[in-house]
Amino acid sequence: MKIIAIDAFYLRMPDITDAADGTQDTLLIRVRTDAGLEGWGECDASPLVSIAVYCCPMSHGNIINIRESLLGETLAHPDDVLRLHEKVMRNGLDIQHIQHAYSGADIALWDIIAQKVGKPVYRLLAEMFGTSDTAHAKIPYASVLFGDTPEDTYRIAVRLREQGYRAAKFGWGPMGKFGEANDIALVRAAREGMGDAAQVMLDAGVAWGHDDATAYARAEAFSQFNPTWLEEPLAPDAIAAYGALAQRKPPVPIAAGEGSSTYRMAEDLVVHGGVQFVQIDVGRIGGITTAFRVRQLAEQRGVQYVNHTFKSHLSLAASLHVFATNADFKLLEYPAAGSALSQQLTTEPLRVASDGRVRVKDAPGLGVRVNLETLRRYVVPVRIQVGEETVFEQASLV
Amino acid sequence: MKIIAIDAFYLRMPDITDAADGTQDTLLIRVRTDAGLEGWGECDASPLVSIAVYCCPMSHGNIINIRESLLGETLAHPDDVLRLHEKVMRNGLDIQHIQHAYSGADIALWDIIAQKVGKPVYRLLAEMFGTSDTAHAKIPYASVLFGDTPEDTYRIAVRLREQGYRAAKFGWGPMGKFGEANDIALVRAAREGMGDAAQVMLDAGVAWGHDDATAYARAEAFSQFNPTWLEEPLAPDAIAAYGALAQRKPPVPIAAGEGSSTYRMAEDLVVHGGVQFVQIDVGRIGGITTAFRVRQLAEQRGVQYVNHTFKSHLSLAASLHVFATNADFKLLEYPAAGSALSQQLTTEPLRVASDGRVRVKDAPGLGVRVNLETLRRYVVPVRIQVGEETVFEQASLV
Repeated sequence: MKIIAIDAFYLRMPDITDAADGTQDTLLIRVRTDAGLEGWGECDASPLVSIAVYCCPMSHGNIINIRESLLGETLAHPDDVLRLHEKVMRNGLDIQHIQHAYSGADIALWDIIAQKVGKPVYRLLAEMFGTSDTAHAKIPYASVLFGDTPEDTYRIAVRLREQGYRAAKFGWGPMGKFGEANDIALVRAAREGMGDAAQVMLDAGVAWGHDDATAYARAEAFSQFNPTWLEEPLAPDAIAAYGALAQRKPPVPIAAGEGSSTYRMAEDLVVHGGVQFVQIDVGRIGGITTAFRVRQLAEQRGVQYVNHTFKSHLSLAASLHVFATNADFKLLEYPAAGSALSQQLTTEPLRVASDGRVRVKDAPGLGVRVNLETLRRYVVPVRIQVGEETVFEQASLV
Repeated sequence: MKIIAIDAFYLRMPDITDAADGTQDTLLIRVRTDAGLEGWGECDASPLVSIAVYCCPMSHGNIINIRESLLGETLAHPDDVLRLHEKVMRNGLDIQHIQHAYSGADIALWDIIAQKVGKPVYRLLAEMFGTSDTAHAKIPYASVLFGDTPEDTYRIAVRLREQGYRAAKFGWGPMGKFGEANDIALVRAAREGMGDAAQVMLDAGVAWGHDDATAYARAEAFSQFNPTWLEEPLAPDAIAAYGALAQRKPPVPIAAGEGSSTYRMAEDLVVHGGVQFVQIDVGRIGGITTAFRVRQLAEQRGVQYVNHTFKSHLSLAASLHVFATNADFKLLEYPAAGSALSQQLTTEPLRVASDGRVRVKDAPGLGVRVNLETLRRYVVPVRIQVGEETVFEQASLV
């Protein structure tokens, strides 16, 4: 089986705001083979910047675009997916954005090869890496933004509780912007709205930069509300400050990692930042291949692996295949309030079952399908010309 | 003074090969102000991917392009350059390529603000950060690729010696590809061609991936030729392997760092990778602002700071301003065999003086000027359309 096409589709909502809502646009990658199989993946990254990595003219031997690296390649065995990952990273050594952009293609390649062998991706991974091949149901936590005020936050929390969520994460918005009293009021509102039995996670949205003292003070202040974790109190590259925070032994576990664009960034955060939950976005770190390596690292180091997902259920499915087979990793970030685009992007979303859990699909491949009608509704044609050459043009949707 | 225009120009040679020669194309950034001042900078990165970071439509509050972040901004004081760096990084938090792309703009902003106050950039940095303001001459080392064979390498070395170079670095090409005997023959040829009195540096071009044992074995085998350093024996993200190599105490100092796209990557390499020379590309790491932070780190940690420069003398000048005022950092990577485009890009190159040294220019700003004729000869118009909107179009050269 040979790869015959790699196409990128830029989708977006009619109006984009500067809210920290990653579902307002997306980039889908479609890979096709000469055997008639096709796979899909999604990048959680700037769509236009990622498209450029699929089509940029060669600068030298370390700046070769993804399409060039993949077109015509053999895809006969799961090992080929690993080989191609390595090839693309090597050819794109001097393209900083290579991992963000490649994530979608890596996911699509796993989708294809798993369809070919007639197994779900998680089972293929289990065979290749010698892990258990039993998938475990996860506890979905709704991932929402804080309301603009504590009152709004309370209303959001009550609504989630009424929808049946037993766990929810509140993040960004006003957190960290209006002083300690407001921060505490926001957390109190989230806890009161969700009730004492629920799991509540807090996402500070990199509010305190490199200031581990303030991060520690907030962890102390929030601990009365018994949050499952305090996420990203510091900047993604503030590893030394994360390490200093860990040394202070905060009374709330610290979570971070969505900003990891490379395996090393995640490793650095776990080993030197001392986080207890490592949150990996399969659409940023280089796809399922790299995310699975971080799962293995988490297992070795005794920290919790959690997905970061603020896109469609295509990303959610890809995320879940990575760690479905580890029973100890119980939580699943579950996009609960995204745009119409993200909610309608797949025809068969991963629903919350009557027991309140989410299960990976046991169908071949990723087990989700892209809704082509949604794609047609939100796709924005992109055209890039360099000199006389059109290096990128919207592929046909047929 | 307000910023009124940020323009990107993609320049390239007519034929691009996959050789590890970074001078085959480039991206220039021009920033203009309402006071009539303009500054220039250069990115060592994929030009098209970087251009996308200047014009990509907003995805949400963490994906805002560079042009949007800078246009209309105040540039009144050197502190504004630091403030704008922080703003751009914050607005581009989820754009992996933000540092590669911003490097050129940051350099251009330093160029402008230093022109405004009528001082060379290095003197401005000295004032702001409290370092010595005396510039020291550097020993330029020619940076060339190994020849395809030991014989070719010998001829290249002899030519450099005849041109008066007392130091030269040989890299990439066949190194690491044809076994230990060939690797040693290449190094022997470089040393014999340069003579015993010269400094010879070796660049393995990430040949041994994560294999610190082979890297150590090569360092031992090469030590008989007394190289100043062995550069990038391992992959840029193989920090654990670099650390293991340092533990083995190789008989040749280890250098690395050109792949550092962020301050943290450089810090990680110095602190956990144990390198003795940290090589920073001002056109990749986020410009002069971030490179200067790494210089300070190197001073604190007692390691050598060296520039990585494989572009034009615009990049060379920017690189030199960063560490001109530290007398202990003696070496300067000096592009000696680049394309016509890179050699003719500035009207006043930084020449090697009769004492064999290179000195930073004492003129206001960076002290070099872009040759507009060269720009016109090699510029490639780029046009990017997203939906109905043309988000990027070649600016006028006038």
